[in-house]
Amino acid sequence: MNSAWSGPAAPDADGIAFLKGHGTENDFVILPDPDGLLDLSAAAVARLCDRRAGIGGDGVLRVVRSAAHPEAAALAGEAAWFMDYRNGDGSVAEMCGNGVRVFARYLERIGAAGPGEVAVATRAGIRRVRVAPPAAGGAPGEVTVGMGRATLPGGEVNVTVGARTWPSHHVNMGNPHAVTFVDDLSHAGPLLDAPAVDAGDAYPDGVNVEFVVRRGPRHVALRVHERGSGETRSCGTGACAVMVAAARRDGVDPSVTGEPATYTVDVPGGRLVITEHPDGTVEMTGPAVIVAEGFIDPAWLRG
Amino acid sequence: MNSAWSGPAAPDADGIAFLKGHGTENDFVILPDPDGLLDLSAAAVARLCDRRAGIGGDGVLRVVRSAAHPEAAALAGEAAWFMDYRNGDGSVAEMCGNGVRVFARYLERIGAAGPGEVAVATRAGIRRVRVAPPAAGGAPGEVTVGMGRATLPGGEVNVTVGARTWPSHHVNMGNPHAVTFVDDLSHAGPLLDAPAVDAGDAYPDGVNVEFVVRRGPRHVALRVHERGSGETRSCGTGACAVMVAAARRDGVDPSVTGEPATYTVDVPGGRLVITEHPDGTVEMTGPAVIVAEGFIDPAWLRG
Repeated sequence: MNSAWSGPAAPDADGIAFLKGHGTENDFVILPDPDGLLDLSAAAVARLCDRRAGIGGDGVLRVVRSAAHPEAAALAGEAAWFMDYRNGDGSVAEMCGNGVRVFARYLERIGAAGPGEVAVATRAGIRRVRVAPPAAGGAPGEVTVGMGRATLPGGEVNVTVGARTWPSHHVNMGNPHAVTFVDDLSHAGPLLDAPAVDAGDAYPDGVNVEFVVRRGPRHVALRVHERGSGETRSCGTGACAVMVAAARRDGVDPSVTGEPATYTVDVPGGRLVITEHPDGTVEMTGPAVIVAEGFIDPAWLRG
Repeated sequence: MNSAWSGPAAPDADGIAFLKGHGTENDFVILPDPDGLLDLSAAAVARLCDRRAGIGGDGVLRVVRSAAHPEAAALAGEAAWFMDYRNGDGSVAEMCGNGVRVFARYLERIGAAGPGEVAVATRAGIRRVRVAPPAAGGAPGEVTVGMGRATLPGGEVNVTVGARTWPSHHVNMGNPHAVTFVDDLSHAGPLLDAPAVDAGDAYPDGVNVEFVVRRGPRHVALRVHERGSGETRSCGTGACAVMVAAARRDGVDPSVTGEPATYTVDVPGGRLVITEHPDGTVEMTGPAVIVAEGFIDPAWLRG
């Protein structure tokens, strides 16, 4: 394509910079704010994330120097940049695995992170993110992020959609998941409503439910219903929970074998590659794409 | 808000300019392309309109000088700018009432249309659009567009959702509408599927269905199911069809009285004001908002 564009030549002097990006179609409005000067109210986040009246996104990634943010200043010696992540409704969240990959892509773009490892401060602590070098054809390298450890508390969980009920595996990745192996992903139906989960008092705050099919050796595909959001195109912690549950189902446990195990996990919005290490930590690798950048009208954002 | 933003300082030299805007939450990616140089394939439009992997929008408004576009060159003497409208799936469309208001807002922004009337070339012919001057507080003026004439062919139409069936009014605004007066907009249910329309062979290509309640004198509210799109936040021709049907129901017919009639029509995404004139023409007035502008990565758009 050819731009050949004659105007407007310059954004408003007081426009608010933004970028739009996604990781496996979990999408974000990125707000570069190195000095932490944006007064980013919950209402402003919700306006930005409104898919029709605003820019649109599952959440906002505000990029602030750790030293300039009270929640991250103590981490500034280890991680220069703080990911101030907000959910689409404006609420504050600790971490987002797809989001931190997109965050690292932005740091690479501005020259704050080359290929290699970068430490990102989050409300869940420091996350170390690796940005692979571009592919031979120039395509951006994939991004790997440590997602912590899975715990499998065991116990009986049943998941029901319509007339079907399946036994399910409880996996905690910092948040709870009910991983449900099925014969056909279409059996989960349109997933407009949360699946019924019969697990006693195990999930007082709700649970994310993943439906999983095998695609091949160490290769699965999933659909996910996220608590509070409905069916989504991707869920980073869900993909990790699914990988660990699938490995155990295959008799694979890196803590026993001493060898890392790697699975390909297809989500509706793309493909993730997930590795569990012998120490129990899980790493997620996948694409991170920035599609556009520009300026937001500040009068509009104030409402 | 304060921008105080330090980077990236300049967009890619070959970035493709875009803006994002909406009219009553019918939203668009605007592509300024005065010289008609963009090779805008259906696939590229679909990528742009993808709400998670792209920018997101109901459609694309490409802004081309009429003289530079083969479909509009003959209109260049009357209308300097051509609205090359595309649906979100990449297909070509003739006109969009909410879109042409946003289009006029863009022309105002670049100085190609001041407050007053501007002629816009569309595939449905010339549309005259009035941009009101800004309000005292600086808020952008509303935008008025001529929407042509309604025809009411009469005949029996029944619309069914779930267990309820209503008689319905057939109104044609260039496209067909089944306008259905109900007691409560919630009676239409979630509107996930197209309402069942029993109208013989009247709608071989489907029909848009509006559910309407009275809010006050010359004031109605609607929900709309657009053929091919599902329930939407706004439908300009649907609001016009509803206004005309509501007027007739109130015994108001400007072609008889010789006086224009004006109704307020609330849609899920905002408020429209619609006037029917004694000559049968219908004008629609409403907001048009541009929220952001910037540049798209051309490598991403090529896919």
